[in-house]
Amino acid sequence: MKADVEHSDRPRPRTKRLPRSVRERQILDAAVDVFAAHGFHQASMDEISEVAGISKPMIYAYLGSKEELFVACIQREAARLLDAIRGAVDTGLRPDQQLWRGLRSFFEYTQQYRSSWAVLHRQANAQGEPFSIELAQWRSRTRDVIAMLLARATESAEQQMQPEQMQPFAAALVGAGESLVDWWLDNPDHTADGMAMRLMNMVWMGFGDLVEGRDWKPE
Amino acid sequence: MKADVEHSDRPRPRTKRLPRSVRERQILDAAVDVFAAHGFHQASMDEISEVAGISKPMIYAYLGSKEELFVACIQREAARLLDAIRGAVDTGLRPDQQLWRGLRSFFEYTQQYRSSWAVLHRQANAQGEPFSIELAQWRSRTRDVIAMLLARATESAEQQMQPEQMQPFAAALVGAGESLVDWWLDNPDHTADGMAMRLMNMVWMGFGDLVEGRDWKPE
Repeated sequence: MKADVEHSDRPRPRTKRLPRSVRERQILDAAVDVFAAHGFHQASMDEISEVAGISKPMIYAYLGSKEELFVACIQREAARLLDAIRGAVDTGLRPDQQLWRGLRSFFEYTQQYRSSWAVLHRQANAQGEPFSIELAQWRSRTRDVIAMLLARATESAEQQMQPEQMQPFAAALVGAGESLVDWWLDNPDHTADGMAMRLMNMVWMGFGDLVEGRDWKPE
Repeated sequence: MKADVEHSDRPRPRTKRLPRSVRERQILDAAVDVFAAHGFHQASMDEISEVAGISKPMIYAYLGSKEELFVACIQREAARLLDAIRGAVDTGLRPDQQLWRGLRSFFEYTQQYRSSWAVLHRQANAQGEPFSIELAQWRSRTRDVIAMLLARATESAEQQMQPEQMQPFAAALVGAGESLVDWWLDNPDHTADGMAMRLMNMVWMGFGDLVEGRDWKPE
């Protein structure tokens, strides 16, 4: 009791002065953890408020209802994942190295931010609309970025590809990546590098080379 | 009016004698169409009953509630798609031809049964649990079958693969296929063969061959 009183006598951290963007990040960080831990329905705004250290009225004022907060989580995680992939790809490298960096950053991201991925993917899928629509929009954006990256990677290649031509390949790659991470969550005894190597060998070398004993290795 | 009376005077088809399996198929066919046309929530048991030509009490008795009927639709469509793929793969062929037949049958199936696919995939995703769980189980089963088919296709190859080794590749392939069909629904100006060729080139040849101008063509 005394400690509490003493505590309240000390000058309080001036949390009110924090910029809105910082507050929103704190709320989203907390929300992602709580949604990932309990699932959308079981997650409570009380717990999110407690973990974030931000009052419920302020959460509602900044990011809206629980549904809107969940949508904001999906959007934030999606943007973060795309940034990670974009940041990892160095256009000065050979096409195979560009693809390798992109794939590796994807699996490293999903390993590092497992909770985020759970929110982004499994929880959103489990809840259906409107979150599944948000997820579908995220897939479209990701597909566009991957198509652009794939096209750019072939700029110096024998057979240069246009982003429109790469759209179906990008769609297939996004689906393959999502599905592979899902498999990985149930089979966690593999490293991010090992997972990236599997996808790299499948889509860079192809089964045709693999069954003849030729595989791809990073330099 | 007269026609109706005349109609009712004729001996009625002895629908009661139809075996249960036939009735269930009629109900499922109608349910898939109605769910695909209106979505799960808007679909009514009245319309399913009308389209199937089977009374509502009998539908409830055979296949349960609307939720259970939707689950039964997912299960039936999933089994049908897997049968189509299994049936198309001839183990006497070369590995590339086996993969090609499997991929082609997948895209031909999704073209022929667009409504079924919508129920199996888009509707189930949009609704979330419990249907998304059913869909996840279907993905696991499909992955196991594809892993087995991929392993079997490499039996005579330089580098023979075991089904367990092929699990992550199969997971990636299932995700790629699903995602590509989703893209195709929004870009319908492509043939089933064209779609299968894209996926075949991506996973058999790989981008490495493609950027050097080597692609795969059926014989």
